[in-house]
Amino acid sequence: MDKVRLGIVGIGNMGSEYCKWLSAGEVPDIEIAAVADRKADRREWAKGVVPESVEFFEEGEDLIKKADVDAVIVAIPHYFHPAFVMMALERGLHVMCEKPAGVYSLQVREMNAAAAKSDKTFAMMFNVRTNDVFRKIKEIVSDKRYGEIKRVNWIVTTWYRSQSYYNSGGWRATWDGEGGGVLVNQCPHNLDLLQWICGMPVRLRAFTHNGKWHDIEVEDDVTCYMEFENGATGVFVTSTGDTPGTNRLELTMEKAKIVCEFIDGQFKLSVFELSVNEREFCFTDTTGFGEPEGKWVEIETDGQYPQHVGVLRAFADHILRGGPLIARGEEGINGVLLANAMQLSGWLGETIEFPFDEELYLAELNKRRAASKKKEVEERTISLENSY
Amino acid sequence: MDKVRLGIVGIGNMGSEYCKWLSAGEVPDIEIAAVADRKADRREWAKGVVPESVEFFEEGEDLIKKADVDAVIVAIPHYFHPAFVMMALERGLHVMCEKPAGVYSLQVREMNAAAAKSDKTFAMMFNVRTNDVFRKIKEIVSDKRYGEIKRVNWIVTTWYRSQSYYNSGGWRATWDGEGGGVLVNQCPHNLDLLQWICGMPVRLRAFTHNGKWHDIEVEDDVTCYMEFENGATGVFVTSTGDTPGTNRLELTMEKAKIVCEFIDGQFKLSVFELSVNEREFCFTDTTGFGEPEGKWVEIETDGQYPQHVGVLRAFADHILRGGPLIARGEEGINGVLLANAMQLSGWLGETIEFPFDEELYLAELNKRRAASKKKEVEERTISLENSY
Repeated sequence: MDKVRLGIVGIGNMGSEYCKWLSAGEVPDIEIAAVADRKADRREWAKGVVPESVEFFEEGEDLIKKADVDAVIVAIPHYFHPAFVMMALERGLHVMCEKPAGVYSLQVREMNAAAAKSDKTFAMMFNVRTNDVFRKIKEIVSDKRYGEIKRVNWIVTTWYRSQSYYNSGGWRATWDGEGGGVLVNQCPHNLDLLQWICGMPVRLRAFTHNGKWHDIEVEDDVTCYMEFENGATGVFVTSTGDTPGTNRLELTMEKAKIVCEFIDGQFKLSVFELSVNEREFCFTDTTGFGEPEGKWVEIETDGQYPQHVGVLRAFADHILRGGPLIARGEEGINGVLLANAMQLSGWLGETIEFPFDEELYLAELNKRRAASKKKEVEERTISLENSY
Repeated sequence: MDKVRLGIVGIGNMGSEYCKWLSAGEVPDIEIAAVADRKADRREWAKGVVPESVEFFEEGEDLIKKADVDAVIVAIPHYFHPAFVMMALERGLHVMCEKPAGVYSLQVREMNAAAAKSDKTFAMMFNVRTNDVFRKIKEIVSDKRYGEIKRVNWIVTTWYRSQSYYNSGGWRATWDGEGGGVLVNQCPHNLDLLQWICGMPVRLRAFTHNGKWHDIEVEDDVTCYMEFENGATGVFVTSTGDTPGTNRLELTMEKAKIVCEFIDGQFKLSVFELSVNEREFCFTDTTGFGEPEGKWVEIETDGQYPQHVGVLRAFADHILRGGPLIARGEEGINGVLLANAMQLSGWLGETIEFPFDEELYLAELNKRRAASKKKEVEERTISLENSY
């Protein structure tokens, strides 16, 4: 195989971007071979963008079963990710799955079980993992140079949406259409980064508010408290109702404080490094009010943030030459578990211990799906220039 | 009355500072007339600092009942504040009470009831209310120029203490000696500012950890989630185990974002002002991803932070000429209610609705007092240069 022949399943907000990027040759190892979408106007649009050789399908299922492709990218509504990924693996195709891995963990477990039986490449589109600052934080936390994490505070309220966003699709922000709100649609990257950097909590208590700032049935405001195995605690705050939002991740480590804040269009990383481990200082200091010496240090990053194109390049490299993936498909479950646990905690008003009752989550979700109302709106594709 | 003749009840860490400031003439309207402390070495020390005319007492009770004074300042261990304040009011003295107003709300209610029957001045030493930045925030929140508060996030972990601090007094950080840890000793100012600026929450859920970072029996790590009457939510995070700590208060308002952060030794105030109320924008915008226009604006403060001396000046001015107090004594209960509710929530693992069962709080506290162990340590007065 010289190039990966790729089928794009779904050319809505994300899939249409893949058409453009790949047609522009941004991933030399990939050529678009097929495109599927149920909407005629979208297929019409794509015909003007992709090479003439590309095969078109109305149904993603037909593309997966019949197209002359090596791999597919699944970019359809969240609920259908696992089913289509499994269909593709079953046919022996490599698969890139859009985030989130699914809406509820049980369907993701099924997908991961299918992937475990397949020798094909299964990857998740966690494009924010390609950000230089988050890669650096992952590195300095993982290599333990600053010891253990003691506290994590992430305020990520840079997800402002006006009512018109929700009105752009009847399925948007409904239990039946998306299975949730800010946790399911906006936060998958943040939840993935959280578990990627800090690991999974052992328990959490979330306070979720449905339709607090908008006329929607799902959560648009969440505050979550977490506890980790090593004793660290954490807070995760998100909303689609704050403007200007804040994206500020603060990690208190035994030997450092790490602050990552989105300022003036980019992530700024600040690290205050202690000369001694606080856990040691605490029990040897004799001054009462003393604190370990330390200083703000410059931590260089490589400045690269190749985003979706970077994820696709790694995907193709993995298929063709065995290079490393940005995110293995199986890792997608962690963000889904976090979102599900936060919702369940909010619904029940209880602390959720991991592992939690995923059947109960699904039953509770299905209650809400049964009562869910599709909004009566005029559907349209809105510009995603600044959001994925 | 030309000058207020003041008695200082207790010259430990705080009282000794009052001796110095007042003897140096920093409050022209006040003269020290009497000092009480049970410890001979402290009285010895004070004799070298205060004017020769000052009367000395071993017992605060004797000072209050016999000394030739117009007013007293009560600066003894937390548990005894209400009893001594009431004793002073009963004798017809004006009273300044050190923070906190008390350890548990019921004793503070008793004190406030006594104050309601008295025509004397009753004030709280909430010196941080004199800070120019907090005064400005109080002003711009109260005058509603930016509409309602939607969210408050306060991370205040700049209370680092090593084990030696706790070992400096056997009563420190014990249920019987202080009635709590970071919430009772370090946070009274923060809790007072929180309620002063944002009002009291209607409910809260706190996660308190006892002796998480230190060998102590009380809480040294707290994360609290709050809900307010207008629908706003909040997070308050504090600890004595983080270094370098963070003191960052962020208020999301309908028409602004206000950030107050302690950086390089001072509070920095940043305000992002929206051109339109977000609540209006949300339902009129048609772009989906649009956000209201806005900009960072310079908010000038008067640069003054007269601290304890400022509180005492206002106290004397109130007594002599009816000027405004920095904090009325009756307002002290709010911070105590917040601390009590947070502890109770942590102890029970439940959400606490206001008003809560204050008898239950006291019963739970008394259980812990009964099992409390005074630490075996070498008592000493430690330098409080950077902390009150």
